[in-house]
Amino acid sequence: MSILVVGSVALDTVTTPFGEGREVLGGSATHFSVSASFWAPVRLVAVVGEDFTEAHRKPLVDHDVDLGGLVTAPGKTFRWVGTYGYDLNVAKTLDTQLGVFGTFRPVVPDAWRDTPVVFLANIDPELQADVLDQVRGPKLVAADTMNYWIDSKPDALKRLLARVDVVLMNDAEVRQLTGIPNLVRAASEIRGWGPSMVVVKRGEHGVLVFGRDRAFALPGFPLDEVLDPTGAGDAFAGGFLGYLAARGPGAPLDARRAAVVGSVMASFQVEAFSLERLDRLTQAEIRERYDRFRELTTFEPLP
Amino acid sequence: MSILVVGSVALDTVTTPFGEGREVLGGSATHFSVSASFWAPVRLVAVVGEDFTEAHRKPLVDHDVDLGGLVTAPGKTFRWVGTYGYDLNVAKTLDTQLGVFGTFRPVVPDAWRDTPVVFLANIDPELQADVLDQVRGPKLVAADTMNYWIDSKPDALKRLLARVDVVLMNDAEVRQLTGIPNLVRAASEIRGWGPSMVVVKRGEHGVLVFGRDRAFALPGFPLDEVLDPTGAGDAFAGGFLGYLAARGPGAPLDARRAAVVGSVMASFQVEAFSLERLDRLTQAEIRERYDRFRELTTFEPLP
Repeated sequence: MSILVVGSVALDTVTTPFGEGREVLGGSATHFSVSASFWAPVRLVAVVGEDFTEAHRKPLVDHDVDLGGLVTAPGKTFRWVGTYGYDLNVAKTLDTQLGVFGTFRPVVPDAWRDTPVVFLANIDPELQADVLDQVRGPKLVAADTMNYWIDSKPDALKRLLARVDVVLMNDAEVRQLTGIPNLVRAASEIRGWGPSMVVVKRGEHGVLVFGRDRAFALPGFPLDEVLDPTGAGDAFAGGFLGYLAARGPGAPLDARRAAVVGSVMASFQVEAFSLERLDRLTQAEIRERYDRFRELTTFEPLP
Repeated sequence: MSILVVGSVALDTVTTPFGEGREVLGGSATHFSVSASFWAPVRLVAVVGEDFTEAHRKPLVDHDVDLGGLVTAPGKTFRWVGTYGYDLNVAKTLDTQLGVFGTFRPVVPDAWRDTPVVFLANIDPELQADVLDQVRGPKLVAADTMNYWIDSKPDALKRLLARVDVVLMNDAEVRQLTGIPNLVRAASEIRGWGPSMVVVKRGEHGVLVFGRDRAFALPGFPLDEVLDPTGAGDAFAGGFLGYLAARGPGAPLDARRAAVVGSVMASFQVEAFSLERLDRLTQAEIRERYDRFRELTTFEPLP
């Protein structure tokens, strides 16, 4: 099944203790699309400015991401400047220039309105809802969000969640949105608002999935080199939804395998800046790391 | 096999957002002993003051912990006063009164010098080494430590680690001790100093085990009620070593099952204050939670 994604395409300037990326291709929709493209056809709805070159576009084209919904508007592309300390879990934003993203109204091309899987990457929840209004009977809708929208538009966000099957958030956001410190209870609260599944992203600590069945937990993959965590959450979402889309419309919602695939994609994402690692990633490497995740987490019953 | 433990027996006053325990039985050796007692015979070397009553002693006696090495000295029992916020991962120490613990010199009773498994709970690394000097040819030696000793006695600690098979530390301590932010590399560095195995405790985020074989990772058990995290690390160590001791001298060092058993014991420990939960814990509950850990973490290979 194809996946429709709406979100940001950006030029990022990122500094970590291990290097720097200047004006490199980034944005939630970018990282999602490239990650998901390893699994399923991806259709991208986003906006860039007149400064967005063919070279910027190339990684998306190389990964066969359909750019039929990528609008070029007068002005500059969204820019984010951020930095990470040795604790790579938390980004510090130094500068944000919205550019053309400030007046972005996503338009889903007519031919894409029946796309069965929809990912609403982290943007204004009202725009996320706008996109849902434009699609017809999607089989699976997933959404991400962030602390900024939880603070500024909690009601719009809650209205959106009522229309969403899967919500992906980090643990701090889950606690912030619900006001409940305990993740089990907080996830249960959110599921009461609509989503049948809450996927709690915990960075290097892995992921927790709460759904109809019993909870699933996967630790993070212990990497000996993490250069830049930017995009990890979106790469996770790309793998998660990409896997589910690849299984087809009749398959059960196998959230466990999907969460492992998401974690595999995220673990590669952080090994280099921007899209460098995913650009040279192979299917064989993906399968090998999936198997290593099993090796990492497997244990026998008590004797 | 029996386990010899040396560490603190204390009276704790603990406040969390969910309640308070006043002058309740605590201390690293206490929590370790009670947890390990579900798996193997435990011999405790520690000191208490004249204010330590039969009522204080009762939970240890009830769990068949051998108190032949518990010395009563003139003065007061070690007291710790601490508090936790909603982020239950980090304790804030409000007061410490060493009492008789300030001049504690552990003496291993003659009859215990051949104990095959030794756990050096978190005390001065020079005292931990003293205990090792007093035992003969132990089959398995494990040690815990804390930031205080890493700061104040790093050289004594490193000398101790050269004599230890398994070291258990939390992730911040591993980073602090080595000066290496990456846990994979930091654990490798520590293994170079002597221990064949490094067990990284991550609180609610679970545990990572680095040894000769490939790494093992287990997420924390998602509990819907955590009342007091005090003693979780020691309960983990008790389950970890208790399981290995129960397997006997000829068994392979099955760190994976041991880490799960440790996590099971720690997950019960935090459900109530002091020893309340472990006091009423059953073998059936332990086995059931072990199985739920498998259910929590199991996933199938890729199709």
